[in-house]
Amino acid sequence: MVGTSHPGNVGSAARAIKTMGFAELVLAAPQKENLTTHPEAIALASGAVDILEKAIITESLEQALAPITLSFALTARERDMGPPVVDIRQAAHEASHHLCLGHDTRTAIILGPERIGLDNNQISLCHRICHIPANPAYSSLNVAQALQLAAWELRYAYQLIQPAQIQETPTHYAPQEKVEALIQHWEQALIHIDFLNPAHPKKLMPRMRHWFNRSQLTQEETDMMRGVCTQILKK
Amino acid sequence: MVGTSHPGNVGSAARAIKTMGFAELVLAAPQKENLTTHPEAIALASGAVDILEKAIITESLEQALAPITLSFALTARERDMGPPVVDIRQAAHEASHHLCLGHDTRTAIILGPERIGLDNNQISLCHRICHIPANPAYSSLNVAQALQLAAWELRYAYQLIQPAQIQETPTHYAPQEKVEALIQHWEQALIHIDFLNPAHPKKLMPRMRHWFNRSQLTQEETDMMRGVCTQILKK
Repeated sequence: MVGTSHPGNVGSAARAIKTMGFAELVLAAPQKENLTTHPEAIALASGAVDILEKAIITESLEQALAPITLSFALTARERDMGPPVVDIRQAAHEASHHLCLGHDTRTAIILGPERIGLDNNQISLCHRICHIPANPAYSSLNVAQALQLAAWELRYAYQLIQPAQIQETPTHYAPQEKVEALIQHWEQALIHIDFLNPAHPKKLMPRMRHWFNRSQLTQEETDMMRGVCTQILKK
Repeated sequence: MVGTSHPGNVGSAARAIKTMGFAELVLAAPQKENLTTHPEAIALASGAVDILEKAIITESLEQALAPITLSFALTARERDMGPPVVDIRQAAHEASHHLCLGHDTRTAIILGPERIGLDNNQISLCHRICHIPANPAYSSLNVAQALQLAAWELRYAYQLIQPAQIQETPTHYAPQEKVEALIQHWEQALIHIDFLNPAHPKKLMPRMRHWFNRSQLTQEETDMMRGVCTQILKK
């Protein structure tokens, strides 16, 4: 949950997560302190206070995404350019396969601040955009209800995957911090070769990021591309 | 919603229903008066106050089910005998097909009172039992969260059905009031022929009801069986 301000939503989120068998709640750059220990959060968490107690609080979304290998920005926002768009059920199926097929894979659903939701910059840090196709005339789900639906879809999809489908040689996806480091390295390399003008960057780096995130890089591929960057910068 | 007592849940239910494109909320035998006009209900309904305003209040579950052709009791309760059990996704698919394939069909999801849920008698009035397969160690969804999931599943399933799948000669299912009238008529007929001893009814009528409800009677079939009852009682 990014930029959350209402303790009641944090409590409801903890309950929603636990009812669906998940345990990890991360608050990225919350708008208020002590959200997880607020009496309203504890009241609404009901029997899920343990989720609040072990919730992780990070200073930024980037930090929260650092260990994640596949992330979904849950948003109602329409964008011209950005990560591929799926609905929450497709997202849940992709996340389940990712968890089963990869090695040390971790997925996350990212929800934005109450009222305003995720901004374009936050969305661009994620691999996918996902939507809840609600009533177009009234699509006002609050953040805890949206999280409840997302957690339910993930649980249902994950349970559909049979152990037989799990690959013997799993793919090693790169965690997001490695991809971010690569993007920065790549930007330096592009500046170095005068492909990117830092005074007039245009949409170049967002497009690069879009491509990197969409293609879900493996560890090997990021290492390889880091090698390319190092090599460019040497020249 | 059967035997509801918290106005906040009624408000959240209205919002959940509207976000998923539905409009009909029925309160059967609510525990308190004026639930739909309570300030807490209005606050939590947010932009769905219109759903509260046109909510229908009935004295009993039987009354609420009277016009319904396919009903699902949403419960966590396990039962030895009772309607067929499906999960909420299967329920949503069946409901969608029923709405498209039948003539004048109406489906309902039935939720019980807070804390205690639906009792066996209430469940036996429904065609199906449906479950939300949540975390067995903590399956505590509140009634509004459960309704949100159910409404979402119905919306998603309904949108998957293409107009091409709609039959040209739809089935005329019997509304529940006709089935109830038949069951009463049938009981009289069974007593009349000394098959059923009213002093020691055992499980006979619950089993009959189970069979009638499971088989989703058509109008024609109920008319036909009513004819059988009349004929028995004449002798």
